[in-house]
Amino acid sequence: MGNSLGKVFTITSLGESHGDCIGIIIDGCPAGLPINVDEIQREVDKRKASARRLATARGEPDQIEIFSGIFNEHTTGAPICLIIWNKNIDSSEYDRMIDLPRPGHADYPARIKYGGFNDYRGGGRFSGRITAGFVMAGSVARKLLSLIGIEVLAHTIEIGGIAAQPQDPADIVKNSRLNEVNCADPVAAAKMIQAIEQAGREGDSLGGIIEGMALNMPVGLGEPVFDTLEGDLAKAIFAIPAVKGVEFGAGFAAARKKGSENNDPFVIKDGKIVTLSNNSGGILGGLSNGMPLIVKVAVKPTPSIAKSQATVNLKTRKSVTLDVKGRHDTCIVPRAVAVVESMLAITLCDFAIRAGLIPRVIK
Amino acid sequence: MGNSLGKVFTITSLGESHGDCIGIIIDGCPAGLPINVDEIQREVDKRKASARRLATARGEPDQIEIFSGIFNEHTTGAPICLIIWNKNIDSSEYDRMIDLPRPGHADYPARIKYGGFNDYRGGGRFSGRITAGFVMAGSVARKLLSLIGIEVLAHTIEIGGIAAQPQDPADIVKNSRLNEVNCADPVAAAKMIQAIEQAGREGDSLGGIIEGMALNMPVGLGEPVFDTLEGDLAKAIFAIPAVKGVEFGAGFAAARKKGSENNDPFVIKDGKIVTLSNNSGGILGGLSNGMPLIVKVAVKPTPSIAKSQATVNLKTRKSVTLDVKGRHDTCIVPRAVAVVESMLAITLCDFAIRAGLIPRVIK
Amino acid sequence: MGNSLGKVFTITSLGESHGDCIGIIIDGCPAGLPINVDEIQREVDKRKASARRLATARGEPDQIEIFSGIFNEHTTGAPICLIIWNKNIDSSEYDRMIDLPRPGHADYPARIKYGGFNDYRGGGRFSGRITAGFVMAGSVARKLLSLIGIEVLAHTIEIGGIAAQPQDPADIVKNSRLNEVNCADPVAAAKMIQAIEQAGREGDSLGGIIEGMALNMPVGLGEPVFDTLEGDLAKAIFAIPAVKGVEFGAGFAAARKKGSENNDPFVIKDGKIVTLSNNSGGILGGLSNGMPLIVKVAVKPTPSIAKSQATVNLKTRKSVTLDVKGRHDTCIVPRAVAVVESMLAITLCDFAIRAGLIPRVIK
Amino acid sequence: MGNSLGKVFTITSLGESHGDCIGIIIDGCPAGLPINVDEIQREVDKRKASARRLATARGEPDQIEIFSGIFNEHTTGAPICLIIWNKNIDSSEYDRMIDLPRPGHADYPARIKYGGFNDYRGGGRFSGRITAGFVMAGSVARKLLSLIGIEVLAHTIEIGGIAAQPQDPADIVKNSRLNEVNCADPVAAAKMIQAIEQAGREGDSLGGIIEGMALNMPVGLGEPVFDTLEGDLAKAIFAIPAVKGVEFGAGFAAARKKGSENNDPFVIKDGKIVTLSNNSGGILGGLSNGMPLIVKVAVKPTPSIAKSQATVNLKTRKSVTLDVKGRHDTCIVPRAVAVVESMLAITLCDFAIRAGLIPRVIK
Repeated sequence: MGNSLGKVFTITSLGESHGDCIGIIIDGCPAGLPINVDEIQREVDKRKASARRLATARGEPDQIEIFSGIFNEHTTGAPICLIIWNKNIDSSEYDRMIDLPRPGHADYPARIKYGGFNDYRGGGRFSGRITAGFVMAGSVARKLLSLIGIEVLAHTIEIGGIAAQPQDPADIVKNSRLNEVNCADPVAAAKMIQAIEQAGREGDSLGGIIEGMALNMPVGLGEPVFDTLEGDLAKAIFAIPAVKGVEFGAGFAAARKKGSENNDPFVIKDGKIVTLSNNSGGILGGLSNGMPLIVKVAVKPTPSIAKSQATVNLKTRKSVTLDVKGRHDTCIVPRAVAVVESMLAITLCDFAIRAGLIPRVIK
Repeated sequence: MGNSLGKVFTITSLGESHGDCIGIIIDGCPAGLPINVDEIQREVDKRKASARRLATARGEPDQIEIFSGIFNEHTTGAPICLIIWNKNIDSSEYDRMIDLPRPGHADYPARIKYGGFNDYRGGGRFSGRITAGFVMAGSVARKLLSLIGIEVLAHTIEIGGIAAQPQDPADIVKNSRLNEVNCADPVAAAKMIQAIEQAGREGDSLGGIIEGMALNMPVGLGEPVFDTLEGDLAKAIFAIPAVKGVEFGAGFAAARKKGSENNDPFVIKDGKIVTLSNNSGGILGGLSNGMPLIVKVAVKPTPSIAKSQATVNLKTRKSVTLDVKGRHDTCIVPRAVAVVESMLAITLCDFAIRAGLIPRVIK
Repeated sequence: MGNSLGKVFTITSLGESHGDCIGIIIDGCPAGLPINVDEIQREVDKRKASARRLATARGEPDQIEIFSGIFNEHTTGAPICLIIWNKNIDSSEYDRMIDLPRPGHADYPARIKYGGFNDYRGGGRFSGRITAGFVMAGSVARKLLSLIGIEVLAHTIEIGGIAAQPQDPADIVKNSRLNEVNCADPVAAAKMIQAIEQAGREGDSLGGIIEGMALNMPVGLGEPVFDTLEGDLAKAIFAIPAVKGVEFGAGFAAARKKGSENNDPFVIKDGKIVTLSNNSGGILGGLSNGMPLIVKVAVKPTPSIAKSQATVNLKTRKSVTLDVKGRHDTCIVPRAVAVVESMLAITLCDFAIRAGLIPRVIK
Repeated sequence: MGNSLGKVFTITSLGESHGDCIGIIIDGCPAGLPINVDEIQREVDKRKASARRLATARGEPDQIEIFSGIFNEHTTGAPICLIIWNKNIDSSEYDRMIDLPRPGHADYPARIKYGGFNDYRGGGRFSGRITAGFVMAGSVARKLLSLIGIEVLAHTIEIGGIAAQPQDPADIVKNSRLNEVNCADPVAAAKMIQAIEQAGREGDSLGGIIEGMALNMPVGLGEPVFDTLEGDLAKAIFAIPAVKGVEFGAGFAAARKKGSENNDPFVIKDGKIVTLSNNSGGILGGLSNGMPLIVKVAVKPTPSIAKSQATVNLKTRKSVTLDVKGRHDTCIVPRAVAVVESMLAITLCDFAIRAGLIPRVIK
């Protein structure tokens, strides 16, 4: 229950971190979209690539397989099943920790909820690895959105308290994939990398903030009062492990502004109705207003750290000290950038199809 | 499309600001819950009461009517329809502004999306008045949650940049309804009221931050990977007009912490497994961990202000100056407190029924 | 739970037979459809009219009220709430029978399911009166379908074992509303009326068969493998109390044919691809094939009869004889014709919108 | 779109007849159910076995693989992905027929709906082979239902007009898997087999009727007014290719009875409330009444026949004669028995979980 997302462009997630595979089913993809396995693979690889040096990439590249829904290199209208096999798995560490819930992880509530039957190895369903499925679906969604001109991108704007300088969207597109932290500000990026390396040496971890954007937005995407653009995007983004906050446009800063400062005045520019400022993040009343959609996503520091931590043995119910071993990203923010991008694309795709902007057959 | 929320405890919203009524349908409420119209009325009144002096309450109190689903003062298991009639409506101002989209409001994207057929009077479906339906549903949800001991509350923690001092949950329960701003810190509350009055005199408006809490939470509520506790709560809360940000526990501040600071260590206290700190806001992996659930909600300043604003005439496509007249809340934060509380209750109720914690018949 | 139907054109039912009202909410209706209360009223009245003489119509005509979603005589894109008030209710008979479940009625399982809290008066949620809401929604759906040329109709083809002669669709359209039983064959209709009157005199009741049709169908409506045209139509039709069987095209008779007899050969006629016969009822693989959609619906005899029946007192758990008093239709088939028509229209509307055939704004 | 079924026990279908695989995802299965791949394999094999001699079983047995959701031979609460690989595929015949829609098949409407992008080989998504996924899901559902005592079974009651004599449920359980047609009446079974062989020799095909049953039903399953037991079962069953009619209890025969004949009187038997007859098929008002649930399913004759048929070339739009080659079941009824059983189990499982009868963790 709870493993499907989207009303007409629906993704269903499956797989566990140390199980056989990670997969995603896309139901509701229009027929006729040209796409093949190499293209999806390339997209997924590209999005992961920059983040690789700092991260704990498993030994070999994740090989994508298409199980269904694509025929003659086009979508067929049938459910698309995309799979990545899990390889090079060593679960011994997790057997040792089976009764020792890791602070900041889902171990404890998952154990209670599923009566101990959940696959705890590598965090099971709660591992960041699950998001590989989201990124595969995102690559299909991005291609569909490109048909109506919508461009989705995400980039790192803060790590460990080090904030990037604001950049123009054009510069973000150009510069955000040039460094390991997916940050468009090269100066800040260098400092972020240093901070991550320093935290790693200390056996600690860092969090940060990712900004997601959608450009060339049509006016009127969203289905209020409940299926608002903000609400459905937030729901999709909170499916990314470690996300603890989501804000649109000025977000929490808007709470400190006056109405006269926060309202975005309408003007005509190049014959189009636009707003002078974009405190709304491109969303009014849960609907897109045609301005760039801006969302900021708070990512907590990786809960897996090398430092000793206090926890409780669930069997003996005694306090114990936990030492988590093994490879773990010091900072997952750079890797989460592609996932934020994917959740944006998947959600906008659902809304665009609901609005009738993407036809059921692509010609 | 998009006017229903929840998977098994499902609410459907109807009505427009200046139409005949505002209503809510609750489908999936267990049978046998003792409740009557006076109790719902009292609950709704109580939640609105403290905020009344600063607000633009319409001339007479909203009278709730039960249309279906309650019989002999108990829920029957059938859809519960609750209605409030709209009265004392003057829509003349909106006819004057029909082609002048108000900055910060949904007027412009709604006009495009619905081809001009939407009921624009008073903002129509995009008015804060729609949330009266949410509060009616919330009163039923709160009563259901009380059966399993869950207590839901919300309070103002910041208005116009004036922040309340942190308080214990017990003090929040005791003190948050003693002033017009629903703030548990009386010193900050006094300053907030002054700030609102000052902004009102300037023809301007203020935003703020509301904190929602749920106490006595069971472990394991939430249905990851997509129906996470954070995701579904955020979606529900973003249905409240003017909300632009949602964060759980440390939220955006977690992004600036180290893992060793942000992880909440597990300990045994009074025979129960708890965490020493609560940076997670009571949620790990999208599941409740038994600690108090904490969510913070950023509310933008009311977009309706008395000051002149720049907009565009949608017919002539010329820039014009807009002067919005009529009564408008200088700050809707105090009134939104009850709505945040309601969205929390409604969402937790859905999860509690999905988890089998609330039976289908209450005995 | 379970009171909403449809994926993008969604109806939600509310109300009880002897409660305040019967209502329906339509969410997902495109904006801009011209419609007003008189038109809906006329449609609903017309559909009921012919069946009136044989039936137990309450004392005064049902007055429809629009609560939301229609503004300036056009749909707005917001949820449409349509209500009929219940009047002239006498529930005393039901209080007498509270512990005596009527054979053939839902009394017994409803009592168990809802723990005795359900509104039992007049059958509550299980009364045929609930379908008044379906017919109101159907009138909106029919108008939407008319925009793309689809015409939906239903008529009686059998009552009490008396079968109508097969008729051409054109004759069915012309003749099926000329008599009290909504049967296009006047000779059979006369016999049906006699049979109903005879059964009524005997204190008994009759069932029958209704045929639903949709003409000018586009090719490809339906969303297999689960949301098939047959499956979703059947589900919608089984929501009508007393329906016990649904078949498409040759239906159960197809089970007795050979493949060479049952397959409908494709031919070109007037430049269009059609089938020579229509054993498929216009549906292949769960998709419309452009031929007339044909569904047959078995309606059981009204369970309320004047004859004495055996039942059990649920409190004493002793066998008792039950005499049901009050007005009851001897045969509900004629009145159910409009409901079958409505469920057809509602379901086809949902599929047509999902297929992108009806735009989100009608211009 | 349309490839998921069920509200809380949800199955999602994937795969094509001549694609890589056929699969099913089960979301919402409680954790802790003991089950392993051999058990599912055995269940699926057993259900297919009896029908094999008459059928076109592919060269090697279908090997089931578990991809996710089962760990240490218990369900984990995560999505269960079950896959069968397609092997021994020869699609050359279908390339030849690409422009020649087969009468009685989905070829024509599928071509129009999906713009020619659908995988047409072997019927693609419209092949009976898709139901292998349903049977895999059914084996999990049956095991869940067995925890609360519900037993689901199906058997052939008619083929080619040859009807079985009615049998007691106990005899049906005992005898329905003893012959190739899954019919509990051995005399009729022998005649059915002869009829199938005769039709095969003539290059023709036969249809028939399957009866599904559920024994030891609890009272009150179903969620009216729309999610009725009849409606949701019918929808699930119509997902089986070739099904054209569904009736419950007396079904279409009820339409010819009088109320006094059709009503099932309540009596006390062995301290339980039961009905003397079971014309309702165990369902009143869309709710189970505790009596055996009885559904009859009309299966049309296999549309693939060896005889020449008339069709239209979709490119040239000329009439042509079509000769379909290759192996095809002369009668799919025997093989569909296990699928009817599965759809019954899947749907009842969804309702049982919704009703809270099956807990979220099996202990």
